[in-house]
Amino acid sequence: MPKIKLSDLMTPSLLVDYEKLENNIRSMATKAKKNGVNLRPHVKTHKCIEIGKMQVERGATGITVSTLGEAEIFAKAGFDDITYAVPISRNKIQKALELSSNISLKILVDSPAIVNELDKASHEVQNKIEVMVKVDCGYHRCGIDPKSNAAVNLVKKIDDAQNLSFKGILTHAGHSYLAKNESEIKRIAEQEQQVMADFAKILGRNGLSPEVVSIGSTPTVALADTFLDEITEIRPGNYVFYDYTQVVLGTCKLSDCALTVLASIVGTYSDRIVIDAGATALSKDQGPAHKIPNCGFGKVIEDYDKCVLASSVNIDSLTQEHGKVIVTGESNTQFNNSDLIRILPNHSCLSANLFDKYIVVEQDKILDSWSIRHI
Amino acid sequence: MPKIKLSDLMTPSLLVDYEKLENNIRSMATKAKKNGVNLRPHVKTHKCIEIGKMQVERGATGITVSTLGEAEIFAKAGFDDITYAVPISRNKIQKALELSSNISLKILVDSPAIVNELDKASHEVQNKIEVMVKVDCGYHRCGIDPKSNAAVNLVKKIDDAQNLSFKGILTHAGHSYLAKNESEIKRIAEQEQQVMADFAKILGRNGLSPEVVSIGSTPTVALADTFLDEITEIRPGNYVFYDYTQVVLGTCKLSDCALTVLASIVGTYSDRIVIDAGATALSKDQGPAHKIPNCGFGKVIEDYDKCVLASSVNIDSLTQEHGKVIVTGESNTQFNNSDLIRILPNHSCLSANLFDKYIVVEQDKILDSWSIRHI
Repeated sequence: MPKIKLSDLMTPSLLVDYEKLENNIRSMATKAKKNGVNLRPHVKTHKCIEIGKMQVERGATGITVSTLGEAEIFAKAGFDDITYAVPISRNKIQKALELSSNISLKILVDSPAIVNELDKASHEVQNKIEVMVKVDCGYHRCGIDPKSNAAVNLVKKIDDAQNLSFKGILTHAGHSYLAKNESEIKRIAEQEQQVMADFAKILGRNGLSPEVVSIGSTPTVALADTFLDEITEIRPGNYVFYDYTQVVLGTCKLSDCALTVLASIVGTYSDRIVIDAGATALSKDQGPAHKIPNCGFGKVIEDYDKCVLASSVNIDSLTQEHGKVIVTGESNTQFNNSDLIRILPNHSCLSANLFDKYIVVEQDKILDSWSIRHI
Repeated sequence: MPKIKLSDLMTPSLLVDYEKLENNIRSMATKAKKNGVNLRPHVKTHKCIEIGKMQVERGATGITVSTLGEAEIFAKAGFDDITYAVPISRNKIQKALELSSNISLKILVDSPAIVNELDKASHEVQNKIEVMVKVDCGYHRCGIDPKSNAAVNLVKKIDDAQNLSFKGILTHAGHSYLAKNESEIKRIAEQEQQVMADFAKILGRNGLSPEVVSIGSTPTVALADTFLDEITEIRPGNYVFYDYTQVVLGTCKLSDCALTVLASIVGTYSDRIVIDAGATALSKDQGPAHKIPNCGFGKVIEDYDKCVLASSVNIDSLTQEHGKVIVTGESNTQFNNSDLIRILPNHSCLSANLFDKYIVVEQDKILDSWSIRHI
């Protein structure tokens, strides 16, 4: 990299603070190790080979992806143990089988019909295809009800299938993102673990013990004090960067947040400033609006080194390439035309998905630039 | 392109209906021609060279961009008349000047400080830099108050600057997107034109007649019946695709909408289905929520050829790669695991920004694939 300063960057740019990133990666790996669970981070958050490698070098035992495109990109870069954590549909079976011939790819299902199709399609594949069952632990997005007979029958069906190998069970407590306070997240974290432990026991009594019992969301994993014996794996993703939503949920400190958007002020007016970071930089994610209504589309940072957010300003609305920042009162921050400001996004995963690269920084120094690999 | 069917596509995919796209492009070009105004479409909507070329071949006299990255990409592809329609900030001046040496690039300003910087930086450039003044016609995002003395003074400053050439005035009536009905949009369209015509006259009286008087937003341009004599240029963008928001605003018919997201059903449950199109396919744009609260994140299409939306279903929430579709009653559509569905996005510009390519279709036939050029 040629030596450039933050002020030389085109805006909007996506900055990742190397020191904070590394701390977050290390802390989660340490927590997993201390508790005797494997860490299989979700790379959909960053979609970046360099960050994935940092995670593996510091203790992760594999990765999780949310698309087969991500699986392909990471497989090409040498990652050979990948869980594709969205239930598979018919049109993705062929690509999944191709990937399975080169790496250990765990495929997710939550219904018997797709098991039939997967088994049938796999008859020409040399190894048995590793299958995980998606469990609904209370989030009610995907997953089978683990208390239903259908759940045990589904596992039995996979176990009986000629070309499939039942690997384990997997859940995601996404409802933790809607929790009102930390104790509610802790309750959800306990629920997530208990549901999975109970289901693992039921399967055990049926001679179908899962090798892998996988849980994970950044809030529930970050706030869990301990893990039940049955839990073998955690899959947080967002923790590498954290973001404003996680700060408000209480799952991290402001000083842990590693990802910021660098923007320029393109206009100053009597009641507002306008920046060049809009929906294509910050995303229209409304953040922790269930706790702080109209909390805006990210937070303007007043002093990055001291971790102080600007008071009396709100990123009120976003259009494609413009952000409108309302000045609601006396602010300590002076906003002048062409000034650079850093913004803590509401949702780091969605912000990262909108950029092509991370600018890796340490304080005001630019260390490197890492590609964000889109499918 | 090898011959493939829609059902062979990986999902989510972004489909553009060639016939509708072409109709939309032709209709707007015809409207501009009939009314004696130039059409300078905003390519931020599609970021696609092929679509830009269709627009120019069918009558556009130049293009509008929202980033210098877009300007660079289109300039390389032979587009030589580009308006960069976001007020410039200091860190973009150098790149803008580089571009200006190869093409006619119009640069936007709305404050005197940046005019000084631009003039100073331009002293080594051979040609004078073409500058437009951004005017606030009531949207209150960017732009100078055209009734203020500051507005005339700003134009005078540009006209006096050694290295700058005052080209014209430009506005965007973005508040049309928040209108409650068509007559309100028409009122805003009249306001947009009147404000600009009045300002042009004031400038004329000061010996500063603008060569270009540019207006534009898809709603105001689509619903304007006539254009005032002073208006020389329109800059709609969204009209190439339209979307659900435009349908609800009344600026297009459902049958005009050219862009859809093809998704797979990855799970069916008693009260919901889950699809593989989430925030990274549909964006978290809430659409015309000011007219239809909780209208969801796009509309499931029941019958594409007959332009019928599915009843009794709502795309209730999006996470990164999942969409949760709530079934609110009896629906005519059967939803089965692995079925493909087409979704009309709330905001086609933001959806397109999330993909790398368009799959160009005519009915069920795939004609081509066009790159979406990100910065």
